[in-house]
Amino acid sequence: MKALRYVNGSLSVSDVPKPVADGEALVRVTLSGICNTDLEIARGYAGFEGTIGHEFVGVIEDVSNGAQSSLRAGHRHPAGLTPGTRVVGEINAGCGLCDLCRAGDPRHCPNRTVLGIVGRDGAHAEFLKLPIANLLAVPDDVSDQHAVFTEPLAAACGILERVSITEDARVAVIGDGKLGLLCAQVIATTGAQLTLIGKHDNKLAIAAGRGIETIKVDEAGALQSQFDVAVEASGSSSGFALAQQLLHPRGILVLKSTFHGKTEIDFAPLVVNEISVVGSRCGRFGPALELLKNQTVDVESLIDDMFPLSSGVTAMKRAAQSGVLKILLRP
Amino acid sequence: MKALRYVNGSLSVSDVPKPVADGEALVRVTLSGICNTDLEIARGYAGFEGTIGHEFVGVIEDVSNGAQSSLRAGHRHPAGLTPGTRVVGEINAGCGLCDLCRAGDPRHCPNRTVLGIVGRDGAHAEFLKLPIANLLAVPDDVSDQHAVFTEPLAAACGILERVSITEDARVAVIGDGKLGLLCAQVIATTGAQLTLIGKHDNKLAIAAGRGIETIKVDEAGALQSQFDVAVEASGSSSGFALAQQLLHPRGILVLKSTFHGKTEIDFAPLVVNEISVVGSRCGRFGPALELLKNQTVDVESLIDDMFPLSSGVTAMKRAAQSGVLKILLRP
Repeated sequence: MKALRYVNGSLSVSDVPKPVADGEALVRVTLSGICNTDLEIARGYAGFEGTIGHEFVGVIEDVSNGAQSSLRAGHRHPAGLTPGTRVVGEINAGCGLCDLCRAGDPRHCPNRTVLGIVGRDGAHAEFLKLPIANLLAVPDDVSDQHAVFTEPLAAACGILERVSITEDARVAVIGDGKLGLLCAQVIATTGAQLTLIGKHDNKLAIAAGRGIETIKVDEAGALQSQFDVAVEASGSSSGFALAQQLLHPRGILVLKSTFHGKTEIDFAPLVVNEISVVGSRCGRFGPALELLKNQTVDVESLIDDMFPLSSGVTAMKRAAQSGVLKILLRP
Repeated sequence: MKALRYVNGSLSVSDVPKPVADGEALVRVTLSGICNTDLEIARGYAGFEGTIGHEFVGVIEDVSNGAQSSLRAGHRHPAGLTPGTRVVGEINAGCGLCDLCRAGDPRHCPNRTVLGIVGRDGAHAEFLKLPIANLLAVPDDVSDQHAVFTEPLAAACGILERVSITEDARVAVIGDGKLGLLCAQVIATTGAQLTLIGKHDNKLAIAAGRGIETIKVDEAGALQSQFDVAVEASGSSSGFALAQQLLHPRGILVLKSTFHGKTEIDFAPLVVNEISVVGSRCGRFGPALELLKNQTVDVESLIDDMFPLSSGVTAMKRAAQSGVLKILLRP
């Protein structure tokens, strides 16, 4: 099968053997999405080698006997995940044995593999495999083009697992890229007083179209010390510094992007203003699928372009260009 | 009067006019303590010029009519603060008018002055002045040498305002300097499973003498991912990196030291492990005075040396030497 792989420091679409279910579920990928993390992996971040990609929607091709028995062994999962079921999949595969896995959170299992990121071939391929416990059926009324956003939307929903945001909270989201636009739309569901801060008129317009207040970053200085929560979704140290300025004392700075390499920051304002910096990574898929089903979030406008998997390298170059939103790959 | 002043980039003991109460309380300083923040101010940190110092105990010399009326205007404060009363004083003087001040927290007032740090001459002097609402009477059974630790001990107590630490929490304190030793002793009062990590046998011995488990920093790698809370009190980026390693996923890193200048950190572990970094600065004096009164905390062992105020510059040099604990100044 074809797969977009990062090996020996270079990216290419190669022919590799189709994976075998072997105790897990084999999924035929119908659509995958390029994430900024894919771009960072293709720059050598995290030392991953293999098939990249972790955002996908697909159809179950094979569920091995072992997979069924692993379900019986204690993984909770809705029934009906049989060959032919359209699915999305949580990307962290835990050991199933540690305290965290047994508490239902394989996302932080110390021995986890992560689809296309840690020790497990990813989603920019014709087929992938994942433990069946990771899979969720996609409701019929959610299209493939929407379902492929489940993973990044779940990551945005993860903010609400980490920080309590109520109607009377003032919240700023910094960054109008894919992640920022999803974060803003998820936070809007809380009824909080929300402002999205970004650089690009066309991207801010997507949020404004959903009734979200937006402001250009060069005008954001006027909002100093006004927010209870600031979500850093720009992945830049200037975004971090701005978030510090926007927060009032004892405010909460949500660190949503994984920065590449080391960042120089001034710790003093964190201590003097007693800011809390809260790291947030993956979220649960259930709430994200619900938002997609109810069309509470506009993901359609986030699609920038679609490429065949065979043009994966070109697609990655396109995704890396400034101002580009979601690039999808069709195997 | 004599005062230890940092002016035009240089530190000296000068003769300056004795302050006038003028709506506040005039306090004759009996003892002051040199904090690492004083050392940073004398390196130009925060752009402060004037008399440095913010840890003190003293005796009320004068309370002007204006001070009494400011009390009547709404500042809550115990009565009995008259000339002759031995006092310590909270270092942040708020505007009294903003939302934060009115909510009883002038520590974050945007227009505050801070004793010896922001816009207000400090405590390494024969006299200082502060709003009478900032002063607390020192109980008779607390000596001057103990009472002078109220401010840094309150800062250590401030951790418990920011993070809930229960008996079953595993907590690491990184740094066996003055601040780390106070933080460890305060956290020990919660009954948590506490480990103090430091470099100096003699300093770790002070904590061990209070029944606190201690470990040398070069052996701390073995404790990876084992803690719920890690308090960074070393003021170094290596301490920050160690704190990240010691925490399990979704652990809490308390940032207690003000770092000087910018620090290079790797944000990725914060996001991947969903760590919360919680800044903590000043605390309330009441709980600290209570700990001193009940002798719950050993501050006596933290006193390294005492100098006359006239030798303030020499005392600052001594305080800056590696391995030195608290240096006191006697006007």
